[in-house]
Amino acid sequence: MSDGIPSLDEIRAARDPVSVHLKRTPLHPYPGLSKLLGAEVWVKHENHLATGAFKVRGGVHLASRLSERERAAGLVTASTGNHGQSIAFAGKVTGTAVTVAVPEVANPEKVEAMRALGARVVHHGADFDAAREWIAGEAARRGARFVGPTDAELIAGVGTYALEILEDLPEVEVIFVPVGAGSGACGVCLVAKQLSPGVEVIGVQSESAPAVQRSWRSGRLEEAPMRTRAEGLATRVAHESAMRILGHPAHGLDDFLLVSDQALERAIWLLLEHTHNMAEHAGAAALAGALSVRERLAGRKVVLILSGGNLSTTALAEIAAKQSGVIRAR
Amino acid sequence: MSDGIPSLDEIRAARDPVSVHLKRTPLHPYPGLSKLLGAEVWVKHENHLATGAFKVRGGVHLASRLSERERAAGLVTASTGNHGQSIAFAGKVTGTAVTVAVPEVANPEKVEAMRALGARVVHHGADFDAAREWIAGEAARRGARFVGPTDAELIAGVGTYALEILEDLPEVEVIFVPVGAGSGACGVCLVAKQLSPGVEVIGVQSESAPAVQRSWRSGRLEEAPMRTRAEGLATRVAHESAMRILGHPAHGLDDFLLVSDQALERAIWLLLEHTHNMAEHAGAAALAGALSVRERLAGRKVVLILSGGNLSTTALAEIAAKQSGVIRAR
Repeated sequence: MSDGIPSLDEIRAARDPVSVHLKRTPLHPYPGLSKLLGAEVWVKHENHLATGAFKVRGGVHLASRLSERERAAGLVTASTGNHGQSIAFAGKVTGTAVTVAVPEVANPEKVEAMRALGARVVHHGADFDAAREWIAGEAARRGARFVGPTDAELIAGVGTYALEILEDLPEVEVIFVPVGAGSGACGVCLVAKQLSPGVEVIGVQSESAPAVQRSWRSGRLEEAPMRTRAEGLATRVAHESAMRILGHPAHGLDDFLLVSDQALERAIWLLLEHTHNMAEHAGAAALAGALSVRERLAGRKVVLILSGGNLSTTALAEIAAKQSGVIRAR
Repeated sequence: MSDGIPSLDEIRAARDPVSVHLKRTPLHPYPGLSKLLGAEVWVKHENHLATGAFKVRGGVHLASRLSERERAAGLVTASTGNHGQSIAFAGKVTGTAVTVAVPEVANPEKVEAMRALGARVVHHGADFDAAREWIAGEAARRGARFVGPTDAELIAGVGTYALEILEDLPEVEVIFVPVGAGSGACGVCLVAKQLSPGVEVIGVQSESAPAVQRSWRSGRLEEAPMRTRAEGLATRVAHESAMRILGHPAHGLDDFLLVSDQALERAIWLLLEHTHNMAEHAGAAALAGALSVRERLAGRKVVLILSGGNLSTTALAEIAAKQSGVIRAR
């Protein structure tokens, strides 16, 4: 992993620690979605994991590989969402102290979830970047491991869900995967392109936070405005290690779509209708992306990554009111 | 199984066919629910199964035990809900023709789901009982197996989820289980009371369809008005085979609670908030029941059976509007 790109063997080796602490997630076919897309549609349910999102696979793998000294010093990271919960969970199950920095204005629900998993949560700075820079400095001073969003061990860990897909449905033809910082998409690319080179891997990002998509198109690391409601897709800057994988000519993404936040909310509602599973905005991005290129999918075997389900009931109620027409009908 | 009561060994034997076709479901702890109930709360996610509800375990087990002659004649049942989908799924994976009778007014979404699984759906009669009586007669004439809601093979199949709970959390102290016809509760009683006699098993039914609860209290088979919105709890008559188990002095239910439909809808919303999983009304009954006896649970290890998640988006939108106060706040 010296170049930050895990090998297929390293991803395979991650299955042991991951499977000790996490149940394998199902890949279910859905007739309703198949009709909607004119394809044979399967959903990989990463929302069924203990923390409700795929990232925990990476956290558990990373924590399982710490040296005794590193474990004693603890893990340090910055996050307001699923990444923080992932590292907190990994710390809990491996007996490693975890400190998560969040900005002063952090969502109290998310803070509570990290604390419930035993993490120490420290509020610092006006925004996420301020919190991150401060805690990275603290970690360096304490000699503790700072965990970034696309560290190689995280990519190897989340890549285990791609191994499961290729085992359950080796004949898959197209995989749609949401892209935030990109660790999930990297895992899918590395695994799928090596095990089944013909498979098409398509990334999906919000048009209100297109930094990674723009970087993929231009081949340079770009920043872009970040105005999406999709927490899991809210990336302002592309990360070099992820771009090396996603932009790779042999194992990179075949296409990279942008969808509107409105399309994400429509997709959340369609997933509730056809799968009875709640997705967060990022978790619905694969379906939103697939709907936007429906004509390319006719009759093909398509997997949608439902990457996470951590939507607040406040957001759900707003989406329900908008999507259902219940209010208008009364 | 000659007396309609499967033995522990028969339930254990059901694990093989069930695990061939269905993924083991997770049992997750939830800090938010634990706080709410003042207990250590775990949820058994039967909503994660391919059909979104526990019953499919019973269908798969029953279909796996058919003789060649029975398989050739096909399976016949009546249902408008999860039972019909369960038998349809079982028929599909075992290559057995399935016919499901539904009343003329059946929910088209449910009919579509059964057809998508390859079942032949026949509309007949003004209500469910008319459909059931007619198709049972047809089955007898054709020499096909009619599958009732609490056949012993179904109870043995659904009992496999109780085995999984006792393996994952042997120290469980209280299990709350929703009761419709009663097959799920029977499975939990038979397994838990034999493997861990001290465990308390508490059934929950809607006060708007209390036939089984009243029968349990009186010791006689009773009918009761059925006005609940909870499809999975909508039972008008108690079944003798289920009552023999649920009312048994050694392995029966320890208590049997009634909750209002309003309490079920509140519990659906609380499950969305704290677990990010959507439950149908019956699937939320365990939480609603636990909330009604909160004072008895202090500090105990409690498992709630989330039996199914097949709620329509129409119902979800109404619940969201009522529970969230979004409308009032605007």
